[in-house]
Amino acid sequence: MTHPEAAIANAWRERYGQTPDLPVPDALGASLFEHRSVRAYTPQAVDEAALRWAIAAAQSASTSSNLQVWSVIAVRDRARLARLAELAGGQRHVAEAPLFLAWVVDWSRLRRLGQAQHIATEGIDYLESYTVGVVDVALAAQNATVALEAQGLGIVYIGGMRNHPEAVAAELGLPPDCFVLFGMCVGHPDPSSAAQIKPRLPQAAVLHQERYDSGKEADAVRDYDQRLSLFQQTQQRDERAWSRVAAERVHGPESLSGRHRLREALNALGFPLR
Amino acid sequence: MTHPEAAIANAWRERYGQTPDLPVPDALGASLFEHRSVRAYTPQAVDEAALRWAIAAAQSASTSSNLQVWSVIAVRDRARLARLAELAGGQRHVAEAPLFLAWVVDWSRLRRLGQAQHIATEGIDYLESYTVGVVDVALAAQNATVALEAQGLGIVYIGGMRNHPEAVAAELGLPPDCFVLFGMCVGHPDPSSAAQIKPRLPQAAVLHQERYDSGKEADAVRDYDQRLSLFQQTQQRDERAWSRVAAERVHGPESLSGRHRLREALNALGFPLR
Repeated sequence: MTHPEAAIANAWRERYGQTPDLPVPDALGASLFEHRSVRAYTPQAVDEAALRWAIAAAQSASTSSNLQVWSVIAVRDRARLARLAELAGGQRHVAEAPLFLAWVVDWSRLRRLGQAQHIATEGIDYLESYTVGVVDVALAAQNATVALEAQGLGIVYIGGMRNHPEAVAAELGLPPDCFVLFGMCVGHPDPSSAAQIKPRLPQAAVLHQERYDSGKEADAVRDYDQRLSLFQQTQQRDERAWSRVAAERVHGPESLSGRHRLREALNALGFPLR
Repeated sequence: MTHPEAAIANAWRERYGQTPDLPVPDALGASLFEHRSVRAYTPQAVDEAALRWAIAAAQSASTSSNLQVWSVIAVRDRARLARLAELAGGQRHVAEAPLFLAWVVDWSRLRRLGQAQHIATEGIDYLESYTVGVVDVALAAQNATVALEAQGLGIVYIGGMRNHPEAVAAELGLPPDCFVLFGMCVGHPDPSSAAQIKPRLPQAAVLHQERYDSGKEADAVRDYDQRLSLFQQTQQRDERAWSRVAAERVHGPESLSGRHRLREALNALGFPLR
């Protein structure tokens, strides 16, 4: 068996056609299973090599028909981060993160390539292409997450980028056919406010055999409501039953943090969603 | 530092509130960077423990507001797989895969929980909630992929599940407010038709600093067109320039494999996409 670091270096060569010009990270460890969202960081900067390996991991993810319809913008400018934090509904960790990644559904690249070659690209205008873009971005971002966490960093996804999509796009200079699906704060976890691993639903609630079967759901949810309430107590957080809090989260348009107008915002950014 | 296997077992306990009742896998290796889509498998079955660790990895991924709006259906029935292969446009590897996972955007669970508690859940009807569901599923599936590949298995995503969403939903017995975003074939890679690591765009094309900048794109695409053509030659596959093939893929509704009607299909499955 190849030494893990040699295998990683070789994968970089196959992916980019050149030898990595940066140190190769140790093999991945248990961090895949230990994920927790990290919102408090030490002031230490995020190493450029850690970011570039995360991008290599992101580009190693599957991408529909190899179209690679995503981009990512690395933001470190404090004034810009303060503005993005505000647009996300006043999330302090966005303003304080050593590194912020804006993950972009990016159909503009193929639009430009089509225009340069006089090929129509009307297929971009369909809900299917929006969906492909969202999936591509999410697969890439999750692989980046795995790589960042394996390198000792902590992250948290920022869905609040969808509170004001047009303003975020303007802040980051996005061309049409682009939109920030979510952000991601990255930094070295502050050991003085360490986050814990969060309980999840029993596997019986999410894993079905052959056909969909909600038969075990009631028991699974009852078990989970109890476990999560206990966990939330230890964190001094809302300990009401998950099943109630979760349902209330989608009570109506007013509970979506302004994102009930996402469709209108996407239309304005060049996604007709046919 | 904790031994990786002990750390993984501990993460399972924190996640599910009980000790794992199955062997703990070795620590993850270099496979994150070595991903390639695998469409040919040995007849060997996929170990149940490998699947359950993959689900644990999937449930370890971030999920928007902890709503966990996904399900996954494990399919092994040969007749059902033959029908799903047909619905996906005749993809033989779907019919032949030892294990097929159908990854489901599942808002039905929260709909049921809302109904049981007399809480309105109209927020589900918005494009924002569709987007949350797609992201949740993709993050979960990608973590599962990382865990499966780290255990020596190969996978390929099957976007063809969106060719006929209503028929796929009927085949798998999905309730309303559910839809199969994509499938995933899983199996032990057939060494006699080993897939290679596929080249990707240079990092300069996808990673931007502070603001979006397409200035390096033309050079990056030229470099990639050349590298990918050489790669495709070694695979006896279409060696025309990527920039042309990719643009043609979104030429118009006729190039979307029937998925230009995804919006209509989603409406029928209970997603008004407001």
